[in-house]
Amino acid sequence: MAVVVPFENPQGSIERLVRQLAPAMERVNATILDRTGSDVTMIPEVANHLISSGGKRLRPMLTLAMAQLTGYAGDGHIKLAAAVEFMHTATLLHDDVVDQSDMRRGKQAARMLWGNEASVLVGDFLLGQAFKMMVEVGNLQALDILSSAAAVIAEGEVMQLGAAKNTATNEDEYMAVIRGKTAELFAAACEVGPVLAGRDKAAIAACRSYGMNLGVAFQLVDDALDYGGKSAKLGKNVGDDFREGKITLPVVLSFRRGSDAERAFWNRTLGEGKIEDGDLDHAIGLMTKHHAIEDTLGRARHYGAIATEALALVPDCEIKTALEETVAFCIARAY
Amino acid sequence: MAVVVPFENPQGSIERLVRQLAPAMERVNATILDRTGSDVTMIPEVANHLISSGGKRLRPMLTLAMAQLTGYAGDGHIKLAAAVEFMHTATLLHDDVVDQSDMRRGKQAARMLWGNEASVLVGDFLLGQAFKMMVEVGNLQALDILSSAAAVIAEGEVMQLGAAKNTATNEDEYMAVIRGKTAELFAAACEVGPVLAGRDKAAIAACRSYGMNLGVAFQLVDDALDYGGKSAKLGKNVGDDFREGKITLPVVLSFRRGSDAERAFWNRTLGEGKIEDGDLDHAIGLMTKHHAIEDTLGRARHYGAIATEALALVPDCEIKTALEETVAFCIARAY
Repeated sequence: MAVVVPFENPQGSIERLVRQLAPAMERVNATILDRTGSDVTMIPEVANHLISSGGKRLRPMLTLAMAQLTGYAGDGHIKLAAAVEFMHTATLLHDDVVDQSDMRRGKQAARMLWGNEASVLVGDFLLGQAFKMMVEVGNLQALDILSSAAAVIAEGEVMQLGAAKNTATNEDEYMAVIRGKTAELFAAACEVGPVLAGRDKAAIAACRSYGMNLGVAFQLVDDALDYGGKSAKLGKNVGDDFREGKITLPVVLSFRRGSDAERAFWNRTLGEGKIEDGDLDHAIGLMTKHHAIEDTLGRARHYGAIATEALALVPDCEIKTALEETVAFCIARAY
Repeated sequence: MAVVVPFENPQGSIERLVRQLAPAMERVNATILDRTGSDVTMIPEVANHLISSGGKRLRPMLTLAMAQLTGYAGDGHIKLAAAVEFMHTATLLHDDVVDQSDMRRGKQAARMLWGNEASVLVGDFLLGQAFKMMVEVGNLQALDILSSAAAVIAEGEVMQLGAAKNTATNEDEYMAVIRGKTAELFAAACEVGPVLAGRDKAAIAACRSYGMNLGVAFQLVDDALDYGGKSAKLGKNVGDDFREGKITLPVVLSFRRGSDAERAFWNRTLGEGKIEDGDLDHAIGLMTKHHAIEDTLGRARHYGAIATEALALVPDCEIKTALEETVAFCIARAY
């Protein structure tokens, strides 16, 4: 039932990034392991279930990469990277409760194993630990960036909740949601690198712009994959967004381009949550007809290009190449 | 069905504290209102539902009181007090989801009106805003105290979750839970006052000790009231803890002092959650028989005395008197 999309950008890979950052990431992973420790055994259990379940750790790698790219020589980026991953993990734990998800990264969601209660509270614990680590680094500007991001992320999630089931959501409203819920953490993760390095406004803005646009592209691809990818590849189920009544760009485009009868279909399924057998296939059919997945991925390439452009003035180096390949990787996931 | 408890400590009142802090609290309230603002309308709706529902705002008052007591002359205590209230509100929002509570402060719980999703996410937003305000104040020691408290609070909540339904919980385990989930925020709220004022270790330790012991006393009284208070007074229902299988001190004492038949009763009701009509009355009857409520309140007086003692070396002044009366107030709630 996969959607046919044009084959492009096959060169994307995060291998170079992973290789370049391997020694630093080892320290980040040790920090993550250390900081999920607690005498309250349920905490490391729940946290490690998710943390060790094979996420790519893209966000902490971005913090490390930007610190390296901008010439940071200290140690603070390790704890900030771990903090960024904890913020991300906390969001996933809370999201699963909000979305009532059964699966996460190809495993049962923590809430299915330990209950919603544990997911909420262990998420809170990880947020607390994240802030503790940031405070230990002691850079007030980095603290400001990451704490502001925490509020913006939650704002984006609430916005998404308000837009759920609302098929009249337009592309701008959708963009505001994903900038908040996803791209802001990418942006903040990137921004703190040059901040630690004491770099000027232009360098900080460049790194932030890379992160923000990469994050938008990443989420656009995610939203496209939800209607066209394979469950095993994504670690979640195709059609999750559909079943949850989430209004993502493929839906926004299909709804706007559709006939009255098609809009009635979207209103019944996503608006009223009345989903019958075959509806997901029909939805994907409508998306194919209106090139909604294709165009969602087109948007992703657009933002990906801006991300790459953001680093244009940075002198060529191995880590810059790795960051460019990372953009291509995030988009190539769709192919 | 109220338990008969000896009448003592009738002088407790927070009137003096409220009066002394009125101008500063007005600024805290304005900050709270300002910082719950968001273009995402659900955020101020949910936040204000809880924030404006007539909590006493005891925790932020403690921050203000300790700042004043220790001679702080700046502005930072206003934002830290607001941050403390946000941390508390976030905890309440998440607790309601964890406990599946219907009521909070005499109103429907936010989760009943806006759903669990909104309670989780608006809680996260408030936590983010709390950290933002702390960062704006820019005192790293205060940041350390409050961010550590956030992790400890969540740890205490998870510990409580792990102990739920476990009738074998002993008094030490119970104490560890309430120190984490409740007393730590009281302690941190108090501790940041002298920290802002740049006072020495002894002054900081005194304020922290007052807060920690007051917090313990406060929670002990709360747990006693859950079996003996009036719903209207507490804004929640008598027997909530019983229905949720929460193992509080009145239960710990009754279980340990009871016969085998009584322990079977506790195991059936709290352990297995099989609660029938009349069980709550029977539970309260057993507590009365074993003086469990009385002794829980006795413990509260013990910790209240330590709280008062903690400030003994502080020169007498109006705010010190107010803080002493606050201890008496927290205990007198039970009478």
